[in-house]
Amino acid sequence: MLVLNEKVPEKVILVEEPEIAELISKYMTTVKSVKRRGYSVYIGIYGGSPIAIASHGVGGPSLALILEELIQYGARIVLRYGTAGATECSNVGKYLIPVGVSHHVYSSLYQRSRGDTSLSLYPDLEMAYKLYSFLKQRRRNVIYGSVFQSDDFYAESHISSDDAVDMETGTLFLVSRLKKVRSASLVILANCRGRDWIDYEKLYETDAQLVLDFMSSFEGEAERI
Amino acid sequence: MLVLNEKVPEKVILVEEPEIAELISKYMTTVKSVKRRGYSVYIGIYGGSPIAIASHGVGGPSLALILEELIQYGARIVLRYGTAGATECSNVGKYLIPVGVSHHVYSSLYQRSRGDTSLSLYPDLEMAYKLYSFLKQRRRNVIYGSVFQSDDFYAESHISSDDAVDMETGTLFLVSRLKKVRSASLVILANCRGRDWIDYEKLYETDAQLVLDFMSSFEGEAERI
Amino acid sequence: MLVLNEKVPEKVILVEEPEIAELISKYMTTVKSVKRRGYSVYIGIYGGSPIAIASHGVGGPSLALILEELIQYGARIVLRYGTAGATECSNVGKYLIPVGVSHHVYSSLYQRSRGDTSLSLYPDLEMAYKLYSFLKQRRRNVIYGSVFQSDDFYAESHISSDDAVDMETGTLFLVSRLKKVRSASLVILANCRGRDWIDYEKLYETDAQLVLDFMSSFEGEAERI
Amino acid sequence: MLVLNEKVPEKVILVEEPEIAELISKYMTTVKSVKRRGYSVYIGIYGGSPIAIASHGVGGPSLALILEELIQYGARIVLRYGTAGATECSNVGKYLIPVGVSHHVYSSLYQRSRGDTSLSLYPDLEMAYKLYSFLKQRRRNVIYGSVFQSDDFYAESHISSDDAVDMETGTLFLVSRLKKVRSASLVILANCRGRDWIDYEKLYETDAQLVLDFMSSFEGEAERI
Amino acid sequence: MLVLNEKVPEKVILVEEPEIAELISKYMTTVKSVKRRGYSVYIGIYGGSPIAIASHGVGGPSLALILEELIQYGARIVLRYGTAGATECSNVGKYLIPVGVSHHVYSSLYQRSRGDTSLSLYPDLEMAYKLYSFLKQRRRNVIYGSVFQSDDFYAESHISSDDAVDMETGTLFLVSRLKKVRSASLVILANCRGRDWIDYEKLYETDAQLVLDFMSSFEGEAERI
Amino acid sequence: MLVLNEKVPEKVILVEEPEIAELISKYMTTVKSVKRRGYSVYIGIYGGSPIAIASHGVGGPSLALILEELIQYGARIVLRYGTAGATECSNVGKYLIPVGVSHHVYSSLYQRSRGDTSLSLYPDLEMAYKLYSFLKQRRRNVIYGSVFQSDDFYAESHISSDDAVDMETGTLFLVSRLKKVRSASLVILANCRGRDWIDYEKLYETDAQLVLDFMSSFEGEAERI
Repeated sequence: MLVLNEKVPEKVILVEEPEIAELISKYMTTVKSVKRRGYSVYIGIYGGSPIAIASHGVGGPSLALILEELIQYGARIVLRYGTAGATECSNVGKYLIPVGVSHHVYSSLYQRSRGDTSLSLYPDLEMAYKLYSFLKQRRRNVIYGSVFQSDDFYAESHISSDDAVDMETGTLFLVSRLKKVRSASLVILANCRGRDWIDYEKLYETDAQLVLDFMSSFEGEAERI
Repeated sequence: MLVLNEKVPEKVILVEEPEIAELISKYMTTVKSVKRRGYSVYIGIYGGSPIAIASHGVGGPSLALILEELIQYGARIVLRYGTAGATECSNVGKYLIPVGVSHHVYSSLYQRSRGDTSLSLYPDLEMAYKLYSFLKQRRRNVIYGSVFQSDDFYAESHISSDDAVDMETGTLFLVSRLKKVRSASLVILANCRGRDWIDYEKLYETDAQLVLDFMSSFEGEAERI
Repeated sequence: MLVLNEKVPEKVILVEEPEIAELISKYMTTVKSVKRRGYSVYIGIYGGSPIAIASHGVGGPSLALILEELIQYGARIVLRYGTAGATECSNVGKYLIPVGVSHHVYSSLYQRSRGDTSLSLYPDLEMAYKLYSFLKQRRRNVIYGSVFQSDDFYAESHISSDDAVDMETGTLFLVSRLKKVRSASLVILANCRGRDWIDYEKLYETDAQLVLDFMSSFEGEAERI
Repeated sequence: MLVLNEKVPEKVILVEEPEIAELISKYMTTVKSVKRRGYSVYIGIYGGSPIAIASHGVGGPSLALILEELIQYGARIVLRYGTAGATECSNVGKYLIPVGVSHHVYSSLYQRSRGDTSLSLYPDLEMAYKLYSFLKQRRRNVIYGSVFQSDDFYAESHISSDDAVDMETGTLFLVSRLKKVRSASLVILANCRGRDWIDYEKLYETDAQLVLDFMSSFEGEAERI
Repeated sequence: MLVLNEKVPEKVILVEEPEIAELISKYMTTVKSVKRRGYSVYIGIYGGSPIAIASHGVGGPSLALILEELIQYGARIVLRYGTAGATECSNVGKYLIPVGVSHHVYSSLYQRSRGDTSLSLYPDLEMAYKLYSFLKQRRRNVIYGSVFQSDDFYAESHISSDDAVDMETGTLFLVSRLKKVRSASLVILANCRGRDWIDYEKLYETDAQLVLDFMSSFEGEAERI
Repeated sequence: MLVLNEKVPEKVILVEEPEIAELISKYMTTVKSVKRRGYSVYIGIYGGSPIAIASHGVGGPSLALILEELIQYGARIVLRYGTAGATECSNVGKYLIPVGVSHHVYSSLYQRSRGDTSLSLYPDLEMAYKLYSFLKQRRRNVIYGSVFQSDDFYAESHISSDDAVDMETGTLFLVSRLKKVRSASLVILANCRGRDWIDYEKLYETDAQLVLDFMSSFEGEAERI
């Protein structure tokens, strides 16, 4: 393994940047941290539950590398907590829980599945719905819908078929499905088509504990295939 | 419109064959029925709620035709209630609620979206989860997972990347997403890779009212995009 | 088999809807009929020749299912007799005999052949030409040319590269070629780009016997590969 | 135009090599000949009918160049008279009249049509059937069926889905269809999967007049679209 | 082999037409010549070095056939010396050395590699750079850049993503790479988007010896993979 | 811009990880450094020449983001200096200069160019050859050849058509070509099909100055298109 070489908790929160991983890790009791090849991983305890927080970098290929290692070392329930660009400007500032992922037929997702099939990309139904319900009850402005997985931050102005554009949710769902782990994605709609960025770091600070609360308390009960 | 030319209820149950449409319609008070071009549509009342039951025939192209007309005339919440083939033989006899849909990159789904994008295919999160929860509480053997949309009943023995194979759920999700209506799919795993068929008609008889109960009581509350 | 479980005649006429199958069956002596899963099949005698008339439903996936079963039970010479939409409005009301079939590269036809090849789609040369000649001699307004196989009735307004649009001729030719049976297609140009429908049922009534005459008398003589 | 710059007859026979063009031209009264950029074109009279004989070189791109110029200067009825490799060794030595053309989805045919459609490739029904019938009556061993258009002579050992492999019939049919000229193809099955070549030049000598007879007498009567 | 059946020199110059092969061959001492199936091959000596000059016809499929045979019989260092159309009109009359080759994803190049990979197409780095440097020192107007390989001379007006359009450089690089021989391409920008042709034959006359000089003196020294 | 918001030097060295960027930056006089969103950028002076060193993270999407910003702020000559996996184990430890880049037809490269064309991917001929020659003269073990751009580090065991596998060179060449900047790639063959890693950090330490020497002295002289 390029980055990890030790057991990690079953529950993992993936974030985009080392800075955010560090920010969220401050709300838990960190037991160990790894910084290697641009990735930051914090292993700790929150609410009595072992949890890891890891940065995944930019894009599907970068996320796939660290996610594969995390699963190899024990991850079973994975939440991406990041940002995405809204297609509708009125949604900026809301949380979006992706239920489906569109993508270019020709994309970075191909290499992991190959063949003539476009594999389904979806969150764990129970985890996604309970996360939705959890945030709703806590009066967060949360909606669900569809994201487009982009492979190129500076070449995505043509994308508009979906509610939001992000660069990693499809890869998260694909690897999770192939490795049979539960996953969901929670993205802050941090800008509108690349403009009008909100101060999303503040949101991370406000809600870090909320997300840690959800993860520490979530136990998948559903029998899935 | 080729089949319909009148208003239909907001809630629609789509089934595969005219025979099943007729079977389920017997449990509601039918107000009107249409039989045209191989399709059967029953419009009626169940538990005080107006509901339509329509047959969709075999395959995505056949379902798309009638679904498009139903939406045109008022359908807003659509449930496919049908059969699928299980990939794992131990799942035969269970209900499956599809959360994602795989498909050949080259498939009948292409024509409706075209372009270079593989559009996300997903159920309404709230409807799918509440249906799952509803059936679970009534002790039905229900699981959720991924289906593969097949375009050719006698050429699908190679399909095994998913939990089940059906011929219409992807088209249901695609048209629903483009027309912005809520939909979910509930399939009986009626055989295992084309063999060992169960007597699924009996299951329709046993559970017709249950499904009508769900549909008559379901009110989508979630704010979706 | 889902629909059939008995021997059928070598000669089969495929029509779109149960209603048309019934209409044409009235001109022959019907020996047996099957109605199952939305399909209607009539087995009978015309002019001393055993012939089956079967409905195929909407779209390639639906036609493939019944055609596969018919061939499995004995069909060797198959004629699709149906309707198509003309690209040129001046051709509405004419008969068209398709010699070639265009289709989206990404279409329902893929699943049966798979791989990296676009398989040739063509009628039996002798059957197609003799049908053309037969109708010409009987002063029908008949032409030959190219059809586009559509996979979605309500998403085909962009199709214009061919003389007509239908939803099943390509699948007929593909399955026929793979199973080595002779086939041809005869379509009434019943509308122009979805508008200006003619009363094609009347045409079926007028010409049902003509088509039965051709089928009962046609004996493929050519040595094909 | 790169090769031609004068009117040519309506009827054209396309052959593979300059040597064969010269061989066949000897059976007609040649009025004019052009040799440029590797192509040989003979313009003459046979049986009172003006006819051109042109070599097309190896492969679709080479045939397209000269065919486009011939049509630009007046060609309306085009016959390819060449060789192909049989898939079944028992067919070596026979004539094949292609009714359909398979090809790699990714092939040289794409550039002329582009877009998301696989265009139908087919001969003129009347011309193909009458040629078949003409040769049959003259006791030639002729069959009809499907060819695969290859783009690479030394990389086609994997091709076996069709009755024969050639390198130009698909391009002939594609350009003919787009330019609305009648065409057919007549190929000598000169080898079996690249081996066991027959002395096909002898066959050209024996049958050159027969083919010229057909071309000089053929008048397309059918109304096509 | 269809064309050759004897040893050829390690160094080969490929040109488009038999006429040009003949023209250049006049500057060396020709030992032997072959004319078969439209190809002309001259085997000779220049500056003490054995060299072959061969025509390749129009398009990738035509070039692949003769190149494959040349390599089979000993060719190891191959230069295409031909013409291409410039995208920028101000470049007409210059020499272009292609470093990369664009092409339609769907093209004649596919058949030789197949599979899901777009294989790299590139010249031998040392040969291409030394050719560039050699011509520069002799004050030729030479540049390097990217060509688009076209499969259809009369259907390429849409191509503009590259510096020039030719019909064979991609196939040269592909076959060279698969057979592990060194190759480069040197094209005269003989027209601008199909118009304004220069008298390129004159250029061949002027520079034939220069190109023969380069080939006779070039010895690949680099260790390549 | 997400990472940068100031002018950078024309010459940039891109490396994989923040650690390597820091390591190499120690050999120059650093004027300024930026650490944001996982990227590290050092702006400095070496041998009198302004040079930037930037980390690009894992995969094409990650490299594209920072490269786009660097070019936006002034980069014109870009060298990727990183690692790749060798296909042939005997090449481990050598330097490879990629001349061509293979990739899955379906890959992350698609989004930037889109359309039906596979764009050429190539280094600047002069820069690549002079780098080769520079290293050769300094007795480094350097070869040139072809790399495969991978989109998924843990799903690339099937790749073997090329000399090495890396995750960013194709994106570097694609963006460089579209933005018209010169680029080349120099990769250490650090492992063999994912195993037998060498201690490549030591190599970076040994050769950092050599690479800085090349970059500070290189002046592109060639007229390119």
